[in-house]
Amino acid sequence: MEINIPSVVAEVTAAFHRYETALNTNDVAMLDELFWNSPHTLRYGVGEQLYGYDQIAAFRSGRDPTFVVGRDLLKLWIVTYGHDFGTANCEFRRHGQTRIGRQSHTWMRTPEGWRIVAAHVSLLGEPTAMKTA
Amino acid sequence: MEINIPSVVAEVTAAFHRYETALNTNDVAMLDELFWNSPHTLRYGVGEQLYGYDQIAAFRSGRDPTFVVGRDLLKLWIVTYGHDFGTANCEFRRHGQTRIGRQSHTWMRTPEGWRIVAAHVSLLGEPTAMKTA
Repeated sequence: MEINIPSVVAEVTAAFHRYETALNTNDVAMLDELFWNSPHTLRYGVGEQLYGYDQIAAFRSGRDPTFVVGRDLLKLWIVTYGHDFGTANCEFRRHGQTRIGRQSHTWMRTPEGWRIVAAHVSLLGEPTAMKTA
Repeated sequence: MEINIPSVVAEVTAAFHRYETALNTNDVAMLDELFWNSPHTLRYGVGEQLYGYDQIAAFRSGRDPTFVVGRDLLKLWIVTYGHDFGTANCEFRRHGQTRIGRQSHTWMRTPEGWRIVAAHVSLLGEPTAMKTA
């Protein structure tokens, strides 16, 4: 398994940034498009667990359409495995907030392009929570 | 890409449970073994961001050796992609706690066996945090 083939890293990095731009502009159609359209897709958000593409899309469409996630990336960590898989992890801080957030994506190459097959977003816990997992 | 080939699902499920048992018995050697020994490995814990196998191992070895993560699994969601990749996500509740936790693993088949290449653990946020990511 060849790790971090440059062309593959470039593709996953571009897909990651498409998602990040969509998040920062509330482009719900693009956010939906970049998740794998499958009942096997999963997204753990800060405040919810969503199983299957339909639950994820319903969550997006149920949001206040004027709500935009403005945030700055603090660190980006992309790794690819062979030609068809990658993970993209980042630390971020939302505008006006102090707590650091973390976003994890597992990406897979599909006939339609790179898609997120699993995602997990959370806020860094308090130091006292360090022993919790 | 064939999804959920039964023999592959069985392998990843077995690997997941090896990790879960190691966590519940504080088997640090096994916890370390199941993470990919690579500078590309990543683990976001409830209270920390760890980059590379060495940081992850140092975090484990720096813990109180009498500390054991006792927890119950509430939901397990394993998906495999082809023969060499899988994601294992679960919801859990630590003994004596009320908040739900979420654990995400991306697994890869290596010459040494299935290994976690990226992990993210967090506690479900308050409902008011739902818009945060």
